[in-house]
Amino acid sequence: MVGPARMTVLVRLAYDGTDFHGFARQADSQGVRTVQGCLEDALAALYRQPVVTRAASRTDAGVHALGQVVGFEPPLPIPPRGVLLGLLGKLPPDIGVVSAWEAEAPGGGLVDPRFWNLGKLYRYRIRTTARRVPQTHRFEWHYPRRLDLAAMQAAAAHFVGEHDFAGFRAVGCQARTTVRRILSVTVDGGEAGDELPADPACLPAPEGPELLTISVRGEAFLQNMVRIMVGTLVDVGAGRRDPADIRGLLATPDRRRSGATAPPQGLTLVEVLWPDPWPPPPRPPHAPTSA
Amino acid sequence: MVGPARMTVLVRLAYDGTDFHGFARQADSQGVRTVQGCLEDALAALYRQPVVTRAASRTDAGVHALGQVVGFEPPLPIPPRGVLLGLLGKLPPDIGVVSAWEAEAPGGGLVDPRFWNLGKLYRYRIRTTARRVPQTHRFEWHYPRRLDLAAMQAAAAHFVGEHDFAGFRAVGCQARTTVRRILSVTVDGGEAGDELPADPACLPAPEGPELLTISVRGEAFLQNMVRIMVGTLVDVGAGRRDPADIRGLLATPDRRRSGATAPPQGLTLVEVLWPDPWPPPPRPPHAPTSA
Repeated sequence: MVGPARMTVLVRLAYDGTDFHGFARQADSQGVRTVQGCLEDALAALYRQPVVTRAASRTDAGVHALGQVVGFEPPLPIPPRGVLLGLLGKLPPDIGVVSAWEAEAPGGGLVDPRFWNLGKLYRYRIRTTARRVPQTHRFEWHYPRRLDLAAMQAAAAHFVGEHDFAGFRAVGCQARTTVRRILSVTVDGGEAGDELPADPACLPAPEGPELLTISVRGEAFLQNMVRIMVGTLVDVGAGRRDPADIRGLLATPDRRRSGATAPPQGLTLVEVLWPDPWPPPPRPPHAPTSA
Repeated sequence: MVGPARMTVLVRLAYDGTDFHGFARQADSQGVRTVQGCLEDALAALYRQPVVTRAASRTDAGVHALGQVVGFEPPLPIPPRGVLLGLLGKLPPDIGVVSAWEAEAPGGGLVDPRFWNLGKLYRYRIRTTARRVPQTHRFEWHYPRRLDLAAMQAAAAHFVGEHDFAGFRAVGCQARTTVRRILSVTVDGGEAGDELPADPACLPAPEGPELLTISVRGEAFLQNMVRIMVGTLVDVGAGRRDPADIRGLLATPDRRRSGATAPPQGLTLVEVLWPDPWPPPPRPPHAPTSA
């Protein structure tokens, strides 16, 4: 028998969220496919006993990840390389393991990524062309009307800093506090980037960028916060709001004044900012949040 | 009533072939989802009467396209822009219309893309890393062992030119002739190109390219020809065959001597080479083929 493990194993996951009902395993999980459910099933097969996992972010149904971080206490001392290769053979093709490593909490116990992460980087993609691209449509919001990039950039700047985001969270959000610090918001325009040949004649020439990428880096987020920010920025880009309106929306807790929640498929959790070197210098870990 | 249309409408299609049983509508099409079936259903809804289509390539189940070309005789004179926008609203999200235009056959009748195309460009992607990438796994063959790029490039050169590809076609292939002209075959190695953070420690450092792209341009192809070429090139890259063996394989019609058929998901019909300007200078169109 192996004694109680002191190390936490951490894995960085990428997933295509299209066919999952979100990250979090659900209490009545019969027939509800979740990333956490698939991961814990694979870990149970690897360790031949149940394993409970904790994630940095409880991504919603349809939201993707390139760098989700999940931790668990291993019942057996399998080295990280063995965990990574073992999981690759047991996970479905829409979940990938990017890396695996071990870490010890300075005070002992599990290294819960929800408390130990330093922030997250989310990306939202919007395609504004008339034509869809089947190869990337699972990861984009297809919004076939041109958006004013400069206006969206001006609006985005107002989100940066510490604000009360009470008006930018899901109605059912349970977080006790609503003040969050956003480190950066960028709105970039680009070519369609899809290798498709140029359209010869029958559509009007493109005006402005065909593919918009909104990147939001923050210490912590409320439920649906990024998607409501994106919905509000699209209102600005479409001319339905003024960029300066963002300031007023951040001053009110009224969810009905901010924009619609952008659809989930455009959103990807790109990176969980992780302390490096480990352990980080002592400071109180921030409160748990969700996005 | 509108008289019989003389013009052919041509559309360039992109599709994610994962969830289709190939391009070609099947005789007993009940419950068998095909690209042609979805397209003809959408056209029937647009024109309010049945429309029969012809494609440049009958791509197999699971094979993708960025530039398939399909033609049909329109029962009503809807301009190409209207066809494109009308189809976008009626096709499922895994089929996209890239462009639409009209053309008249010099001798009258339908411009059948199968006879009028000048060739095709196919691409095959192989990921050789241990880790999968869920965001791109639908478009790649995950083959987690490093391949010898230089050996594959040397082998690929032997395919270029006019050869008898009888040993490189599906057992059930119906083509009457088996001589085909290949214009170019390239094998390129690249980074994983997936935005994933570098793996920190637990896997061995990469040796050689993580993502291989095999591009094959030819006048015409036999059934499964590209995928058998790829399977044979992978044998070379894995050290199971010598690059010079290709010459011997091209001299025999024995399918059992060439490599396994590579799985469909790595293959994309990137481009159908189309006469420009139209109509092309007179020459006998080549015989119909499939790949």
